[in-house]
Amino acid sequence: MLIRSEYDIRFRLPKPTTMIAMLRLHPSVEHDLEGSEDLKVERIDQDQNREIPAREYIDSFGNRCLRFQAPMGTLRLSGTSLVRHHGNHDDVDDEARQHPVEELPDDILQFLLSSRYCELDRMSHIACELFGAIPEGWQRAVAIRDWVHDHVRFDYKSARPTKTALDVFTERVGVCRDFQHLAITLTRAMNIPARYATGYLGDIRVPYAGPGDFSAWYQVYLGGRWWTLDARHNTPRIGRLLMAVGRDATDVAITTSFGSADLIHFHVESNEVTQTGEKVPLPVAPAAAPAITASIAPLNS
Amino acid sequence: MLIRSEYDIRFRLPKPTTMIAMLRLHPSVEHDLEGSEDLKVERIDQDQNREIPAREYIDSFGNRCLRFQAPMGTLRLSGTSLVRHHGNHDDVDDEARQHPVEELPDDILQFLLSSRYCELDRMSHIACELFGAIPEGWQRAVAIRDWVHDHVRFDYKSARPTKTALDVFTERVGVCRDFQHLAITLTRAMNIPARYATGYLGDIRVPYAGPGDFSAWYQVYLGGRWWTLDARHNTPRIGRLLMAVGRDATDVAITTSFGSADLIHFHVESNEVTQTGEKVPLPVAPAAAPAITASIAPLNS
Amino acid sequence: MLIRSEYDIRFRLPKPTTMIAMLRLHPSVEHDLEGSEDLKVERIDQDQNREIPAREYIDSFGNRCLRFQAPMGTLRLSGTSLVRHHGNHDDVDDEARQHPVEELPDDILQFLLSSRYCELDRMSHIACELFGAIPEGWQRAVAIRDWVHDHVRFDYKSARPTKTALDVFTERVGVCRDFQHLAITLTRAMNIPARYATGYLGDIRVPYAGPGDFSAWYQVYLGGRWWTLDARHNTPRIGRLLMAVGRDATDVAITTSFGSADLIHFHVESNEVTQTGEKVPLPVAPAAAPAITASIAPLNS
Amino acid sequence: MLIRSEYDIRFRLPKPTTMIAMLRLHPSVEHDLEGSEDLKVERIDQDQNREIPAREYIDSFGNRCLRFQAPMGTLRLSGTSLVRHHGNHDDVDDEARQHPVEELPDDILQFLLSSRYCELDRMSHIACELFGAIPEGWQRAVAIRDWVHDHVRFDYKSARPTKTALDVFTERVGVCRDFQHLAITLTRAMNIPARYATGYLGDIRVPYAGPGDFSAWYQVYLGGRWWTLDARHNTPRIGRLLMAVGRDATDVAITTSFGSADLIHFHVESNEVTQTGEKVPLPVAPAAAPAITASIAPLNS
Repeated sequence: MLIRSEYDIRFRLPKPTTMIAMLRLHPSVEHDLEGSEDLKVERIDQDQNREIPAREYIDSFGNRCLRFQAPMGTLRLSGTSLVRHHGNHDDVDDEARQHPVEELPDDILQFLLSSRYCELDRMSHIACELFGAIPEGWQRAVAIRDWVHDHVRFDYKSARPTKTALDVFTERVGVCRDFQHLAITLTRAMNIPARYATGYLGDIRVPYAGPGDFSAWYQVYLGGRWWTLDARHNTPRIGRLLMAVGRDATDVAITTSFGSADLIHFHVESNEVTQTGEKVPLPVAPAAAPAITASIAPLNS
Repeated sequence: MLIRSEYDIRFRLPKPTTMIAMLRLHPSVEHDLEGSEDLKVERIDQDQNREIPAREYIDSFGNRCLRFQAPMGTLRLSGTSLVRHHGNHDDVDDEARQHPVEELPDDILQFLLSSRYCELDRMSHIACELFGAIPEGWQRAVAIRDWVHDHVRFDYKSARPTKTALDVFTERVGVCRDFQHLAITLTRAMNIPARYATGYLGDIRVPYAGPGDFSAWYQVYLGGRWWTLDARHNTPRIGRLLMAVGRDATDVAITTSFGSADLIHFHVESNEVTQTGEKVPLPVAPAAAPAITASIAPLNS
Repeated sequence: MLIRSEYDIRFRLPKPTTMIAMLRLHPSVEHDLEGSEDLKVERIDQDQNREIPAREYIDSFGNRCLRFQAPMGTLRLSGTSLVRHHGNHDDVDDEARQHPVEELPDDILQFLLSSRYCELDRMSHIACELFGAIPEGWQRAVAIRDWVHDHVRFDYKSARPTKTALDVFTERVGVCRDFQHLAITLTRAMNIPARYATGYLGDIRVPYAGPGDFSAWYQVYLGGRWWTLDARHNTPRIGRLLMAVGRDATDVAITTSFGSADLIHFHVESNEVTQTGEKVPLPVAPAAAPAITASIAPLNS
Repeated sequence: MLIRSEYDIRFRLPKPTTMIAMLRLHPSVEHDLEGSEDLKVERIDQDQNREIPAREYIDSFGNRCLRFQAPMGTLRLSGTSLVRHHGNHDDVDDEARQHPVEELPDDILQFLLSSRYCELDRMSHIACELFGAIPEGWQRAVAIRDWVHDHVRFDYKSARPTKTALDVFTERVGVCRDFQHLAITLTRAMNIPARYATGYLGDIRVPYAGPGDFSAWYQVYLGGRWWTLDARHNTPRIGRLLMAVGRDATDVAITTSFGSADLIHFHVESNEVTQTGEKVPLPVAPAAAPAITASIAPLNS
């Protein structure tokens, strides 16, 4: 299967600003690339675009990061890639066993610790009460994922940069990253290494679900390897393309600006395409019942 | 000046639910009423509306509260009132002095304490550092109001039911109630009694500012009486109609439901009207520069 | 049974300070008083003590509060009382039914709302998951009390003025007031009115448990009356003497100072006495296993 | 100057537990070692001690970590080292310039981000208001350090594992690590890389200050190198021996146990010694005024 991904993101910068972008595919995906990844950093203007020099480096998690000094004005980050994908769903293995901590590789131990959005020190009692009775390993990992999926409601408007796993646990509403943060925290609390992942998850062989965005999911370490889990969508999917992994969203922000940067345009797409580059049509969704209106608190004027 | 206020609020209730509503004007406004306040609590249906019996009581803050048992289905709360208003702006007195705590009336002392959204125990050091050097009394009270107004950005989408004064201080974004909670907390920390107020604040003799809503402001106790301040709008206004006061938003929710209740319709208006009941036209706003686009974080899908 | 209570509390005040003290017995206990409550507010000095005039008022919860202007120097609050007590344990009634909210008296509704230390808005999902399946009424109320008692560890050193019910839920350690705050929050979340109580709970007909202090417990409203529960001790006790009730500890602080006040002496005792005023000896505790040493985190120098 | 450091730490383990210890000196100190570092991991018993095999690895921050499987029973971690130290105070350079972010080395960028105890997303407005007007570079870095030192009170009893920089900012009381977390957060918010450091800081050429402990300080990156700052002690000191660096205390815990472990003995010392190994006597402290009694809240029984 071929997957073509593309993005076009623009910021207005009031001042020159240093930026770090994690927009390249993860090194582990590189060998599946057909041709080279195309990526442009430009200052755009009425008359002409000017390319901004950017330098790549690998961070301590193994991600490909791009750093550049963005000039004042309008900045455009755009790119496309074509990936040959095996076409299979996310891997599943009911038998994947949990490693006792003493067996874990050294560089994996860090994914058992607290991080900005994952406060194990505040959630370990809760995790033990909820999942202590479930058999270790794969079963426990997916029980956590399912619990989060079933107990948290998605609401795009509920996003905020300060929201931690405990906030998600108490408020029970969140966006993609919030679902994963809560699941990661509960998973680590049960001594299963878990890390945050970001990348493309287009509507591929599933019905259209709205305008594209980058997506977040997470990975757990069981039976000697990392497995992909997703507390938000919670069904095995086809066509995730990994961009970066880290302790939590702090480590893998798509862009980090050291100065103000107003997002003025945002377009991301990831589609299955034919050999000739045409989009493969999506299946049609079954007719759904109308959505339940969520409660709205008055008095916000 | 005559002010006509009206509201029409509807909820869908999946089950019978007890509700408390603070939809009446405050007892202090009563003598300005022209005619009686009209208020209806109804279950609405295709064919007919059925009035729901409601009982009024006065809470410990002196507010008129309505309680009723709402049946399953669609609930409508609607009402109108006509108030003769003096037409003056909110009172201002640069000389209003701060009472030493020992002088304060007994029933005012409670407005120096912490409450759900006003954590004095976490903000008193901050308040002293910011406002300790400003002369006591009126000057200090408005310095606090102005600081909050200048340092917090309004964003309708930033509302959430758990947001405390400290959250507003750190996030610097909020809705009406958030501005007031932060100002109240900082004010109490400086030993000036402050309480939360809710009511109507229509666009009266100011340009149209968007669809109506109930509004929140706050009051400070100086020189032997309560004064109206508003950290959100921060200019003296004409035509506030008080509905309820309390320690913070917890005490004066427009409606409190002891069960789930989905808001499905919300209309509030408060306008100056002529003797014959016609709306007095509003002044036209001066042309404004286009609004700056606020920064939006990606990765929320 | 006769209970004699006494306290002697001293503060050093660097400046004159307004204080409010809740050191009197609650009006509901008054008719059990033998003689009058003795209470002194003094400034103490090498040579002589000088009485400080204090004025009593009743707050909105019905508590007797004392307010006075304390001069700079050493302040002493002391008092004794002798109460004729029925000698029975805290009341218990397995049949006490839960009122639907619509039946609750008006002035009790406030004890269903959030307050400074009781964030219902953050804990209602948690409460429903833990206790939603337990039958309503007495059974549910004591299930909450027992859960808190069993899941929170007492540690005197864990006290802090900012600790909320959610903090207690996540940290699982606390002092007296923390146990009650968590229990109150979970109870209110299940629509049972709950309020915070403070008073004397001496070692009466139980083995000596260490130096005395004021104590905190809580009350739930079931079957038309308030019942005493105590998530800290969690066994019916004899000889509680109520001093004050409120939404949470904010409302019933033994002393509130509007300025700095360093506690330099603290003595509280409450004992059963004979008709002639001698202390009734306590039963001897069964020999206990040595206490388990709690974990101590290094790196605090 | 010669510095001899030693520690003896014991835990009681109810079950076999995996542990990670950061008890070795940092690789950067290695070339100053006289002889080899002595380090023992033992299970101790009435009759005999049994050495526990431990394996060393280097984490992503460059720290030497020891991992081992501790058996049930009493675990003892002990060691000594002798280091030849230059005898100078911590380096100071008023001219050290702040790098624009675009100049910073790749592997230093991570020390500009949020971490568990350092919530930049909640403190950046505060940092800008407090320090935005102070000249960049060394001057701004020490202004932050001094502010924290002057506004936070040390209290050993105020330690808790969940305390973040924002908690320290609001509560204004903390232990060693809390001072550094607040300073690190404010420093990063001003775009100066800052990292947490832990190691020995014995009473060397300063008066005796009480029983020893490991200590925490922090480092800032200015003028092409890391500088040691210490918001707790806030005077240049002699004889810090670095053990580990990381984003915050999460990364450099002296010991991390994946299971319960009760600390039952804790002894740490770091002293200047003569060539023959005798402790160099400390200077005598000037007579001090008696300590001010801190305020103690009653009602914690």
